[in-house]
Amino acid sequence: MATGTADFGSVEGFVREALAAQGFMRLVGAEVEEVVPGRCTLAVDFRPDLTQQNGFFHGGVVAFLFDNTTAAAAATALKDPKTEAVLSAEYKLNILSPARGPRLRCRAEVVKPGRTLIVVDARVYDMDAEGREKPVAIGLATIARVALERVS
Amino acid sequence: MATGTADFGSVEGFVREALAAQGFMRLVGAEVEEVVPGRCTLAVDFRPDLTQQNGFFHGGVVAFLFDNTTAAAAATALKDPKTEAVLSAEYKLNILSPARGPRLRCRAEVVKPGRTLIVVDARVYDMDAEGREKPVAIGLATIARVALERVS
Amino acid sequence: MATGTADFGSVEGFVREALAAQGFMRLVGAEVEEVVPGRCTLAVDFRPDLTQQNGFFHGGVVAFLFDNTTAAAAATALKDPKTEAVLSAEYKLNILSPARGPRLRCRAEVVKPGRTLIVVDARVYDMDAEGREKPVAIGLATIARVALERVS
Amino acid sequence: MATGTADFGSVEGFVREALAAQGFMRLVGAEVEEVVPGRCTLAVDFRPDLTQQNGFFHGGVVAFLFDNTTAAAAATALKDPKTEAVLSAEYKLNILSPARGPRLRCRAEVVKPGRTLIVVDARVYDMDAEGREKPVAIGLATIARVALERVS
Repeated sequence: MATGTADFGSVEGFVREALAAQGFMRLVGAEVEEVVPGRCTLAVDFRPDLTQQNGFFHGGVVAFLFDNTTAAAAATALKDPKTEAVLSAEYKLNILSPARGPRLRCRAEVVKPGRTLIVVDARVYDMDAEGREKPVAIGLATIARVALERVS
Repeated sequence: MATGTADFGSVEGFVREALAAQGFMRLVGAEVEEVVPGRCTLAVDFRPDLTQQNGFFHGGVVAFLFDNTTAAAAATALKDPKTEAVLSAEYKLNILSPARGPRLRCRAEVVKPGRTLIVVDARVYDMDAEGREKPVAIGLATIARVALERVS
Repeated sequence: MATGTADFGSVEGFVREALAAQGFMRLVGAEVEEVVPGRCTLAVDFRPDLTQQNGFFHGGVVAFLFDNTTAAAAATALKDPKTEAVLSAEYKLNILSPARGPRLRCRAEVVKPGRTLIVVDARVYDMDAEGREKPVAIGLATIARVALERVS
Repeated sequence: MATGTADFGSVEGFVREALAAQGFMRLVGAEVEEVVPGRCTLAVDFRPDLTQQNGFFHGGVVAFLFDNTTAAAAATALKDPKTEAVLSAEYKLNILSPARGPRLRCRAEVVKPGRTLIVVDARVYDMDAEGREKPVAIGLATIARVALERVS
């Protein structure tokens, strides 16, 4: 018998599978730390091929992590991932500081799971060798629910 | 004797060098198509390791291209890249359509080269095999000028 | 006999009526300059009660004008304003310069009239006594189409 | 002898005076509820001349309140309001729900008081007759510090 937990189990599994199927997620080496209802956390370890010209994490890595974590958080608000999906409509990101790791982490949280739009709030943190987090970016994303025939 | 063109020659060279020094630019395989005063165009060819789960370019690749092209366009507004640099303060990006290539291109243009902030307008285009461009994202970036001792 | 023009005639009439029914539009004294398919222009004349502390137009007046003009432009993309309406989902606005008029004008244009979301690009101009326009703000808005029972 | 509290007293006084000198603040009837270091709260009571066509608070009122509260919060981060001022560079606002009052309130908080840019996070709440708050908008603002000779 399906329960709320069981249902979410399937959504969490769906989100993890979708992320695992992304070529770019593997190229960047990002990892799923948490997927729970209304929240997602992804992270990536520092590598020289993820940098900009001064040796910090490239802004594009920060953006990728923000984009992917907010979409995954929004996906946890879907009732049935077999009949609907999420598409990022837009986002805005403020960069607060450069990040050098050794680990970059994005925590995203659904602010409003609307009928057509899901608004997600997220912060990106630079994690030092002692595991202390410092916020390096903050943003908001608007993510659309779409019926599955529209994305296939 | 330094002329406007000669001066810009050095800014263009500086921008191209900075982009060439980015590990992430090489990992993604992005290329510089144009760097002129007030404008920059970067592009990247489709590869399976740049995709999301449905085989389109990952939103993170679109974001990387937007972030990098807008910052490079802003850098062309610097008077002397030895004494000042650019730092992306924030941007907002609207995703209009998924992109599958074979080439993704971002065209960025400086809207206002202010004393402390440079505002840049940019669009990302999906280019099909016949070279026709279709807009897939549109956004605005705010980029700060910083004295060089502050970023080193 | 209904023609494209006649159909748009009804949408234009609907947009003008909706704007005329806004108490805040009248309080601020804004005027409709143009409503055509995919575009809208609204403007407001300078008054001392529309200012911030230095005598320029208040940022809130710029924001109001941007918000209203982008929503009205999006409404021109509706097929039947009796069965659907528009709701601003979000927008981002960059302020380029202070404005002192004597007239402030916003020109908005639909970038993408999507099935659920309409993306609108807009600029706000300060118009001097000779009628010359200077851009003072630039932004992007995401506006949702909603079935009418949801907003009534 | 100047203390932190005394210093802030002068900044708070400066912020309150600047808001009181705004013609548009008076026209809309907005009130200062709180100005403390790093935070500001402004509010406005419902009136028919603050509405859009369906009788809700106009989006322009929400935008005005957001714009003004974020700038005022940023101003509390200034060290000396006689030598520097704040100018809103840009903001992004997500509208979550329509608001009908009887009171609309914006709470803004400084996320990062940088050397040239101050990033401010804010939410707008609809307050019902029992004083319960419901979030109706969420956004981020980037506000520039400017030396006073540049704005006069």
